[in-house]
Amino acid sequence: MSTDNFEITPIGFISTPFKQKFGIPRQSGIAGSAIGKIQIAKPFNDINAFRGLEKFSHIWLTFCFHLHRDKAWSPLIRPPRLGGNEKIGVFASRSTFRPNNLGQSVVSLKKIERVKNDIWLTVGGIDLLDQTPIVDIKPYIPYADSIPYAEAGYASKPPKVCDKTEFSELAQKQLISISKKYPDIATLIHQLLSQDPRPAYKDKEDDREYTMSLYDFDVRWQWNLKFNFVVSITDAVKR
Amino acid sequence: MSTDNFEITPIGFISTPFKQKFGIPRQSGIAGSAIGKIQIAKPFNDINAFRGLEKFSHIWLTFCFHLHRDKAWSPLIRPPRLGGNEKIGVFASRSTFRPNNLGQSVVSLKKIERVKNDIWLTVGGIDLLDQTPIVDIKPYIPYADSIPYAEAGYASKPPKVCDKTEFSELAQKQLISISKKYPDIATLIHQLLSQDPRPAYKDKEDDREYTMSLYDFDVRWQWNLKFNFVVSITDAVKR
Repeated sequence: MSTDNFEITPIGFISTPFKQKFGIPRQSGIAGSAIGKIQIAKPFNDINAFRGLEKFSHIWLTFCFHLHRDKAWSPLIRPPRLGGNEKIGVFASRSTFRPNNLGQSVVSLKKIERVKNDIWLTVGGIDLLDQTPIVDIKPYIPYADSIPYAEAGYASKPPKVCDKTEFSELAQKQLISISKKYPDIATLIHQLLSQDPRPAYKDKEDDREYTMSLYDFDVRWQWNLKFNFVVSITDAVKR
Repeated sequence: MSTDNFEITPIGFISTPFKQKFGIPRQSGIAGSAIGKIQIAKPFNDINAFRGLEKFSHIWLTFCFHLHRDKAWSPLIRPPRLGGNEKIGVFASRSTFRPNNLGQSVVSLKKIERVKNDIWLTVGGIDLLDQTPIVDIKPYIPYADSIPYAEAGYASKPPKVCDKTEFSELAQKQLISISKKYPDIATLIHQLLSQDPRPAYKDKEDDREYTMSLYDFDVRWQWNLKFNFVVSITDAVKR
């Protein structure tokens, strides 16, 4: 171990609708209705440390890909955007299988709350697994961070959007009761499906039924060439 | 110590012109002529890990504020942009005095070279101290990272620019020989001075002579209300 190594302590943990990797947006900002709540951990739960942050519409989260923490990194990975066939370097990607397991996402800042000794930040447009450890929060500074004209190789455009989602009669009924607790769930499902979360190596004509977990629910859907068809939204099977 | 803690290993170190904090641009991208070279450390010096990165014009560096590694963080800091008087929260800033000591900068990617077993990345527009440990490299993805319309509180505009630099006769002579080794040094000095690196609490009418170190040189200059006047560029006094 090098003496240049150093230790990281999470400053908090984020609660998100995403209980498993499948279905998570491939970058932040894609699903605006994907809301997360960060609970700040001791000793970082000092409201002074957040003074002025409310003036920023967007913030950077630095986080740890915690499910990969004990797994080896690999020099080459297969990004889903390249059809799952072509290999590129791990540092040319934002793959989770990377040295140091650090990720970064820009998210919208909705709310900062103090509840007794706890501090909660509500953020939108997230792409993080539930209970991801947050290791830093920084303001987004457009004059430094925003480079609209940057060239971005294979990731120059957002994932292809299918902008139509239909819900079965069953799914519509289920939505009525679920919406009481999660008012934006229909919009969220639409946003997640529109980025086409199916595995990269699927067939074009693919009538398979996929299941994605969201909050405590299993969302089942099919792709039928013209739109995404949500079959059902049922209580999650215990995993 | 929490079991959620984890250890970070630098993937490389960057050589930069900035031998001390004073004068370093306050964000990346401000001084395009500020060039750095990252030497990738073992075992990350596998050229495969960088395959495809050359297609990106800009990359994110995640790094460690190594000079602050053993120093305490503070909930409140005084950002130079607010005149050094007003305090804001450390998470509402990009201050170096922060928990976990992690920084992030977007820089332009100039070159990736393999020399025997070494890998070198040349990057521009840097704001990093010489020998900063780099802990991650990721491609810049405009559709996810670029939010030109984001609101940014006190940091909504770049630092005020003074777009005129004059060199004394002595400094001009010195530039001739220095330029043989560092062809862009005059441009770099101009870019660094134009962001006004003087301490935030200086007087408006300030005829003090300041010294900034750059490569192996001490650059002495004065602010004379209308432009920056470079007095001399001499071999650095040993510090």
